[in-house]
Amino acid sequence: MSYVVPDELVTFADALADVSRAVIRPYFRSRLAVESKADASPVTIADREAEAAMRCKIAQRYPDHGINGEEHGVVRGDADYVWVLDPIDGTKAFLTGRPSFVTLIGLAHRGRPVLGVIDQPITAERWVGGAGWPSQHNGTAIRTTPCAALADAKLNATSADMFKGADGDAFTRLKRCVKITTYGGDGYAFGLVALGFIDLAVEAGLKYYDYCALAPIIAAAGGIATDWQGRPLGPDSDGRVCMAGDARVHRAALEVLAGT
Amino acid sequence: MSYVVPDELVTFADALADVSRAVIRPYFRSRLAVESKADASPVTIADREAEAAMRCKIAQRYPDHGINGEEHGVVRGDADYVWVLDPIDGTKAFLTGRPSFVTLIGLAHRGRPVLGVIDQPITAERWVGGAGWPSQHNGTAIRTTPCAALADAKLNATSADMFKGADGDAFTRLKRCVKITTYGGDGYAFGLVALGFIDLAVEAGLKYYDYCALAPIIAAAGGIATDWQGRPLGPDSDGRVCMAGDARVHRAALEVLAGT
Repeated sequence: MSYVVPDELVTFADALADVSRAVIRPYFRSRLAVESKADASPVTIADREAEAAMRCKIAQRYPDHGINGEEHGVVRGDADYVWVLDPIDGTKAFLTGRPSFVTLIGLAHRGRPVLGVIDQPITAERWVGGAGWPSQHNGTAIRTTPCAALADAKLNATSADMFKGADGDAFTRLKRCVKITTYGGDGYAFGLVALGFIDLAVEAGLKYYDYCALAPIIAAAGGIATDWQGRPLGPDSDGRVCMAGDARVHRAALEVLAGT
Repeated sequence: MSYVVPDELVTFADALADVSRAVIRPYFRSRLAVESKADASPVTIADREAEAAMRCKIAQRYPDHGINGEEHGVVRGDADYVWVLDPIDGTKAFLTGRPSFVTLIGLAHRGRPVLGVIDQPITAERWVGGAGWPSQHNGTAIRTTPCAALADAKLNATSADMFKGADGDAFTRLKRCVKITTYGGDGYAFGLVALGFIDLAVEAGLKYYDYCALAPIIAAAGGIATDWQGRPLGPDSDGRVCMAGDARVHRAALEVLAGT
């Protein structure tokens, strides 16, 4: 695991976030957001335009890299490097005027997520971290917080509604074991795990572009990011993720989720 | 209902929010927040100090006014004017590093909430509105958004966990009728109702200091704020509130909550 993301790719990822932020900002809380038609809401327009701008920049600079984006699909998915993009993670947050949606920019190397950027265009917060790059928040080094036991842990999930069937039972079990549970946040909440203010973030039903950027940032802040079985996250994960600031809480959470 | 809040009280309420914001800001995401003891966490300290600062300012300027605060209790509760204070509404949001907690400053006149301030110290957002004072967000006039039917409504609740027993069933029924449901936000979400980005906000288990500031702002933005029976909110309400930007959605929501 001695792979280190080359400097120029980290710089480039940061520049991608600059482009995306500039495209998205004017659409936030625009009056259109309230009166729009369902087929071209401002969130949809902002999402598409931001992704198009990032894809254009990638194609110009790294024409052999692959791209996997929420809005415009996959090209060169088998390339050594694949950029995994979600311009607006937290569509509902954007729709309801909350500055907690984020832009997610992940970079995978040979199928493994190695670099992530989380950008919040309105509060102007940016997280960057990955292989060989300790995580930063607006340029300041960050670390997750030690937390030995579930009973002391602050748990977050975007919504309890996304856990279906047995997953719902598993989440309810977990909720009963922790100190507090908060909701909302989408990718932003994972930034708060990296910052040490949330101990445990559990979700289900995520897509690759929802977690590809998050896993490297959590890991490079001292935390751990896996699926509910404890396996590394990759393109073929089943969308159930468990990320924690401390490996002890992570292990305990997996046990409770599994019902063992 | 020709009562209008005197100018000087609106100006004073704004000044209270300035004081509270200045006290709270340094505690947000302070490292202490992570490592603190349970009996004196930064959120507790910030809450107490901000309320003490506001109480002091009120006592100096309006010694005959009453005060009802979350942290330091009630004095002169039967005065004509009572200030109702919650320096940090959204303790969990504060604890988990989210800039969505708010300071709530309400003013009641003869038991009726007549003026409200919602302040977010980190994003520097402030809502002010009340009797005779159309609601503003950072100085700009705001209006709720027309929404004719529940099927088109964006619903928010801080957490589904706060609805106990039959209230939980009522909330589940309501959730099934709306377009989307979002979670989190506490008082901030009511600001988003006033801004027109959320159509309906329903909560249970609230205290007077949680909703006294919110009801006047919603009303003065063109919306409607009541308990689950459609009664005006006051000191003796049962903590179940329903606020909407449009009276049609409000009425429909009350019917679904009542199960009729």
